[in-house]
Amino acid sequence: MEKIRIGIVGYGNIGKAAELAIRQNADMDLGVILTRRDPERIVPRMPGVIVDGLGRAAEYADRIDVAILCGGSATDLPEQGPGMAALFNTVDSYDTHAKIPEYFGRVNKAAVKAKKTAVISTGWDPGLFSLLRVIEESVLPSGKACTFWGPGVSQGHSDAIRRVKGVRDGRQYTLPIEKAVERVRSGEGPELSTREKHLRDCYVVAEEGMDLERIRRDIETMPYYFSDYDTRVTFISQEEMNKNHSKMPHGGFVMRTGETSDGSRHAIEFSLRLESNPAFTASVLLAYARAAFRMNGEGIVGAKTVFDIAPVYLSPRSAEELRKEML
Amino acid sequence: MEKIRIGIVGYGNIGKAAELAIRQNADMDLGVILTRRDPERIVPRMPGVIVDGLGRAAEYADRIDVAILCGGSATDLPEQGPGMAALFNTVDSYDTHAKIPEYFGRVNKAAVKAKKTAVISTGWDPGLFSLLRVIEESVLPSGKACTFWGPGVSQGHSDAIRRVKGVRDGRQYTLPIEKAVERVRSGEGPELSTREKHLRDCYVVAEEGMDLERIRRDIETMPYYFSDYDTRVTFISQEEMNKNHSKMPHGGFVMRTGETSDGSRHAIEFSLRLESNPAFTASVLLAYARAAFRMNGEGIVGAKTVFDIAPVYLSPRSAEELRKEML
Repeated sequence: MEKIRIGIVGYGNIGKAAELAIRQNADMDLGVILTRRDPERIVPRMPGVIVDGLGRAAEYADRIDVAILCGGSATDLPEQGPGMAALFNTVDSYDTHAKIPEYFGRVNKAAVKAKKTAVISTGWDPGLFSLLRVIEESVLPSGKACTFWGPGVSQGHSDAIRRVKGVRDGRQYTLPIEKAVERVRSGEGPELSTREKHLRDCYVVAEEGMDLERIRRDIETMPYYFSDYDTRVTFISQEEMNKNHSKMPHGGFVMRTGETSDGSRHAIEFSLRLESNPAFTASVLLAYARAAFRMNGEGIVGAKTVFDIAPVYLSPRSAEELRKEML
Repeated sequence: MEKIRIGIVGYGNIGKAAELAIRQNADMDLGVILTRRDPERIVPRMPGVIVDGLGRAAEYADRIDVAILCGGSATDLPEQGPGMAALFNTVDSYDTHAKIPEYFGRVNKAAVKAKKTAVISTGWDPGLFSLLRVIEESVLPSGKACTFWGPGVSQGHSDAIRRVKGVRDGRQYTLPIEKAVERVRSGEGPELSTREKHLRDCYVVAEEGMDLERIRRDIETMPYYFSDYDTRVTFISQEEMNKNHSKMPHGGFVMRTGETSDGSRHAIEFSLRLESNPAFTASVLLAYARAAFRMNGEGIVGAKTVFDIAPVYLSPRSAEELRKEML
């Protein structure tokens, strides 16, 4: 069997995790790591891997089947998404929700023109959670849905803490509030405010001599990130931060409860508990890379989301085997 | 918008539930109920519904967009599956696992010839559970999967009890054993025997003057159905049976735990808690009826399973709306 040749674009948390994850997929090989940094300074985890500059991506157009775009949604992907889709089949985890329709349009245009298949906004949310929201709503049309996130580290909120004056280091855990989870799970269908659903639990290392109460206030009142939530701020030492808060766990639940016309009630729940957010995200990206490769082979081109992809394309097993073993 | 015209083939538990479920799907209308029984003797729940004999199905070929095949897997579907797929787009819940490849082949042949789209073996298991087994394995390739069923009524095991000599009525609940569920959920990846996973809890009404211990023994030692399980038999009155055991709840879990190459561990879980198995099954069948109709409109014909169907086809929302609202 010819292996799917994977290119990794961007060598941060997700890119490094994708490199490792390829080992768990026997039908894939790593072809190249492309980076904006000096390729000489990148030390890949796997021996023998080619590392090259992102500017030379076009050189790899015939040597890579699918490029995993591991850059950020704020500045990397808006440019790289359409750019790479002109050269390769691609997969990305673009997650700026409000701009997805626009991003989809730009990637689609590039991919259609180049006859490539570009899976956008996948991973676990957006991605698997989105998929489950749609499936759950479709099979139980009369009901109420609710997504909870955590317990897990939010990178965006941790960054926000670190931007507060006098903060040396910070880590934010998003915690689903158990009472709210139970109310949704019971089928009660509650209207929950932002504050009732999640707690924001912050661990902060302050610079020496700083006014801790001012830092606490600055965090708690920060609009959008914290002001709508109950926020807990705990000051710790850098040593404790390094020792106890270096991991990136995450997860959550997608729930739907509702009634069928006979009055009977039903509950559907999908949950993830992840010890490493980037490792699991990369693993999901690879399954969708397989889908992009196969769909492209069938002439299905353009930008695609998790909604457009039949599950058979995700699995290394054949359709016959899936019917026989998994149905 | 033109509504999807649904035909119901077979008016048992699932057929009756499908009739009601159409009310929750604004893009569908009920066109006809086809029955093997005397149509005059069928009283549909909804006023104005046409009821006709199954032998006259061909008359409805141009008036029905999708036929929901609600017959049983043992004798009805092996004949009706290919027969109806020659006339209509179809959806069924064929669940004789060992014979699915053969059934798929026969339905596919009929559907391809008639340019129809036939979704086989859907509902919640086979169906949603199958889908989740494949998605979970694809995104977390190195791991262990486990499906638990219940708490819920097993129709097949209830029928088996009722065939025991001296039994007037019987109901069997399949119960997942909590300790086994916890072991799987913990990520321990245990090897579990059949007996360790599920308990079979039987409620039995005996005919007067029968030897209850003999009945208990006959149930507990029944091969395939009960002998590999711990089985609990409780004798009750017909009155208590009617009062407390007339509902058909069911559900279960599809779990997968595993590791990514960095050594971090992850757990994925999908669960259903259903107050009425037939009502929920019918609701799932309608979502897949929508998919059959739409795929057929795009020229995608032949037999399909849940693995072949992109989630976008299940939802009444447009792809644009899904990207904007649900991703």
